[in-house]
Amino acid sequence: MAAPKNKSALSENESPSTPNSIGQKSAEKIKALRKKKLDIDQLLQDILNGNKTALSRGITLIESKNVKHNDQVNTLIEGCLPHANQSVRIGITGVPGVGKSTFIEAFGNYLIEKHGKKVAVLAVDPTSSVSHGSILGDKTRMEELVKQEDAFIRPTASGDSLGGVAQKTRESIILCEAAGFDTILIETVGVGQSETMVHSMTDFFLLLKLAGAGDELQGIKRGIMEMADSIVINKADGENKRPAERAKSEFRKALHLYPIKNSEWKPKVLLSSALHNQGIDEIWKMIESYVSSTQANNYFYDNRKEQNKFWLLQTINEHLKSNFYNQPKIKIALQQQLTAIENNKTTPFEAASYLLNKAKEL
Amino acid sequence: MAAPKNKSALSENESPSTPNSIGQKSAEKIKALRKKKLDIDQLLQDILNGNKTALSRGITLIESKNVKHNDQVNTLIEGCLPHANQSVRIGITGVPGVGKSTFIEAFGNYLIEKHGKKVAVLAVDPTSSVSHGSILGDKTRMEELVKQEDAFIRPTASGDSLGGVAQKTRESIILCEAAGFDTILIETVGVGQSETMVHSMTDFFLLLKLAGAGDELQGIKRGIMEMADSIVINKADGENKRPAERAKSEFRKALHLYPIKNSEWKPKVLLSSALHNQGIDEIWKMIESYVSSTQANNYFYDNRKEQNKFWLLQTINEHLKSNFYNQPKIKIALQQQLTAIENNKTTPFEAASYLLNKAKEL
Repeated sequence: MAAPKNKSALSENESPSTPNSIGQKSAEKIKALRKKKLDIDQLLQDILNGNKTALSRGITLIESKNVKHNDQVNTLIEGCLPHANQSVRIGITGVPGVGKSTFIEAFGNYLIEKHGKKVAVLAVDPTSSVSHGSILGDKTRMEELVKQEDAFIRPTASGDSLGGVAQKTRESIILCEAAGFDTILIETVGVGQSETMVHSMTDFFLLLKLAGAGDELQGIKRGIMEMADSIVINKADGENKRPAERAKSEFRKALHLYPIKNSEWKPKVLLSSALHNQGIDEIWKMIESYVSSTQANNYFYDNRKEQNKFWLLQTINEHLKSNFYNQPKIKIALQQQLTAIENNKTTPFEAASYLLNKAKEL
Repeated sequence: MAAPKNKSALSENESPSTPNSIGQKSAEKIKALRKKKLDIDQLLQDILNGNKTALSRGITLIESKNVKHNDQVNTLIEGCLPHANQSVRIGITGVPGVGKSTFIEAFGNYLIEKHGKKVAVLAVDPTSSVSHGSILGDKTRMEELVKQEDAFIRPTASGDSLGGVAQKTRESIILCEAAGFDTILIETVGVGQSETMVHSMTDFFLLLKLAGAGDELQGIKRGIMEMADSIVINKADGENKRPAERAKSEFRKALHLYPIKNSEWKPKVLLSSALHNQGIDEIWKMIESYVSSTQANNYFYDNRKEQNKFWLLQTINEHLKSNFYNQPKIKIALQQQLTAIENNKTTPFEAASYLLNKAKEL
């Protein structure tokens, strides 16, 4: 490339093209932009047509850490929103070993085969950024469900924070609903605040438990009991059947001690053996009864509005953070300040005000 | 006021004064600014001299929601920082009824009278923004300690979020240390994430428990057990003595099951009767032993560095949020968007992007 003569102090580094080539370059740029725009429109159309490959691609775009994709993500979500909200969102939690995957496999197959539902399975896992997706990572754990035409299974979104993961999951729900999935199952491991996050994006919250040795209530967090709309004691088969019956009556008694929920719904305790497809029908009937009673008293809709207000604030907060930390100069400066803290050369307050001031200058 | 003639399009609303009065007004402004500056310098000096009234005023300034005070707060904290860090920070948690106030009263008096310590008591209570300070609110609960010259007791900072409350508490620690307080006790109710917050700003974490009816481990959150450097079974007197001994051995066994901590410290289980001043001496000796062993293996210092890195990020995040939400135009627009969500006129994503774009224009 020929160096321009008479280079003035006002010339910019970003403009290496000579004047007579600008017209051509601009035309190419516009073409490329149009192509991008077209791709998103096509992707949106494919998602709305229920194409699962497109749905997958859309969620991958949502999960992208590349800030350049932000506009595309916004276009996609805005296009999906008018077609969302037509679903029941069910949160499912329980400690590892309780049989969550087997339960979801049995429940999902049942919904598709007996009720013609379209079932999407998502997951919130705050540990996934470290362990790279500890739940749903192994798709073969739901080998029957994954083969169903009307099922969509997506492993955990990864992210730097639970807030970020939850945000992406929430956006993924919108895409799944726009693609025609009418039953959204959101799995969570019982770690940290992940249950609270999942509770804040679902209509019905189901806690899976195992029968133990008479210490059913031990180790169960009070907050989880309060959130549960139902406790299902899984693996209630063979020798486990009688302990499961005992656990059922113990949980029933315990649930009586909690104040009445805003939904006016009295949480139910049921038994299941997901492995033998037992109890699944009863669980679905219970959820249907929950949905019709809370739609009748308006709680279903009011709750979604409250969730939307919460998500408005969460969405803003996540954007404020990602806008700040994703600036390349802030990334470098942050590393320098962390090193300075490590070497006792600065304090968190000094470092924070340095970085905040730096961002103002950018 | 006479309207200026020939008002041009460039005239500003904010300048109602006539030209010949500018000199005088400016002088007054400068004087007022100097006075403000002087006040903060004086306040800082008084705090460094150990004046408790000044310390109180400084913390009130930190807690101020008036964004105009931000600069003064920064000046104050920057002035205090070189004199901070010379203390042991002890977090104390336990459910209501466990006797936290009585314990802190007995422990604080003991430290002052037997060891010549200067003791500051602060609190983190995420529920305080609703209930207006449920812990330490009633100062008479520590009637002996509050009379001590070398004690400083401060009720809960209030705030809109746990993050905000924690930030103010953390800044208050700096001021207390600069005022010469060498032992900082930070009380928390066992609600939500408040323990995690307090754990992230203290050197030693103490969990108060009561002896129960053989179900000691029931209802105790696993995360709390993992954070505890010591479990103290309080009210171990009279008829409670034997159940307390049993609880002690049960907790010891349970703690053995946890992995070794990075501090290499093995959490201890002790008994106390704060009401009868029993066990207090042993508890302090244990904390001294913790401090000397973790200072020897450097964990004490490394942990503070890690906490500082965490607090750098927390400080930035809180500033990003308060800068955004405190803009008057955003406050109004946010209320409008929340109402629109309530009336199903918008979605959280649309509302968030509207508000984020609005902030860019400001």
